[in-house]
Amino acid sequence: MERLSSKTVYEGRIAKVRLEEFRYDDGSVHEREVVGHPGAVAIVAHDGESVYMVRQPREPVNEPDLLEVPAGKLDVEGESRLECAQRELAEEIGRAAAEWRELKRLYPSPGILEEEVTLFLATDLSDAEAEPDDDERLEVVPYPLDRIDDAIDECRDAKSLVGLMLLREELRAGA
Amino acid sequence: MERLSSKTVYEGRIAKVRLEEFRYDDGSVHEREVVGHPGAVAIVAHDGESVYMVRQPREPVNEPDLLEVPAGKLDVEGESRLECAQRELAEEIGRAAAEWRELKRLYPSPGILEEEVTLFLATDLSDAEAEPDDDERLEVVPYPLDRIDDAIDECRDAKSLVGLMLLREELRAGA
Repeated sequence: MERLSSKTVYEGRIAKVRLEEFRYDDGSVHEREVVGHPGAVAIVAHDGESVYMVRQPREPVNEPDLLEVPAGKLDVEGESRLECAQRELAEEIGRAAAEWRELKRLYPSPGILEEEVTLFLATDLSDAEAEPDDDERLEVVPYPLDRIDDAIDECRDAKSLVGLMLLREELRAGA
Repeated sequence: MERLSSKTVYEGRIAKVRLEEFRYDDGSVHEREVVGHPGAVAIVAHDGESVYMVRQPREPVNEPDLLEVPAGKLDVEGESRLECAQRELAEEIGRAAAEWRELKRLYPSPGILEEEVTLFLATDLSDAEAEPDDDERLEVVPYPLDRIDDAIDECRDAKSLVGLMLLREELRAGA
């Protein structure tokens, strides 16, 4: 599969749409619409007692307080995935982590959206040096690890579900 | 949270972008970009031996043969989620299922994309009445259930990962 051409047909503040032409191994050529995305990170952070989640409004799916793990877009030039994850963890829940491990890279909606999410496990938590961002619409939710099954039942965000289920496997293996 | 207005600013073949204004509980009003989506279904189908997956090119993430469960958009007027899932299972892997159960509804990328995916578990499989669609770029992959850990390791598609991990829980509970 080879990308032959790419043309931006819409460019908003965040959303960008491209029309791209691809040639496949059988020689055929087809045009595809692609919604551009810089990629994102998401962080499964726990201190042995709780996994730290957030609730926030998610307008595209009309949810006023969707439960998710901390996450953010790779939108700072030159910042690595890990640095972005460290910044987001501090901004969203006011924590730093001494231990970081990559759990998974996943595509949220690979038929239309360029986004790739890198999921990190963050442990050995402490208070971050800087204050968290003052976002009145983001609520920090420490979810007790012994209720992780409830968190998985309640959660409807794909990256968070994958992260919580991978964490559950880790907890079982370590128990 | 209340949607005050919605304006389509780009409309392609599949991708649509809207600018929407929301009023929050604190009274503030903000504009958000939303990539429209009709919703989708995804099917975790197994016969006790294998879970039936597919490989196909996913241009937006530049993957020539991404491993996923069968899935499709809710793009037929008047068709229910279950009917759509039954049609997709027949079209993509040539199977029908006597038992259907909804596993989960999830949002692949709720910060930008309107898409909601309904995940179904399909069992008691038989050959579908109609032939599967002739799509040279889609390969059916029967993945042995006793290698479901490998499938989860390899899989990078969010909805499929959630489906496979939920199936693994079912298999463990039933074992």
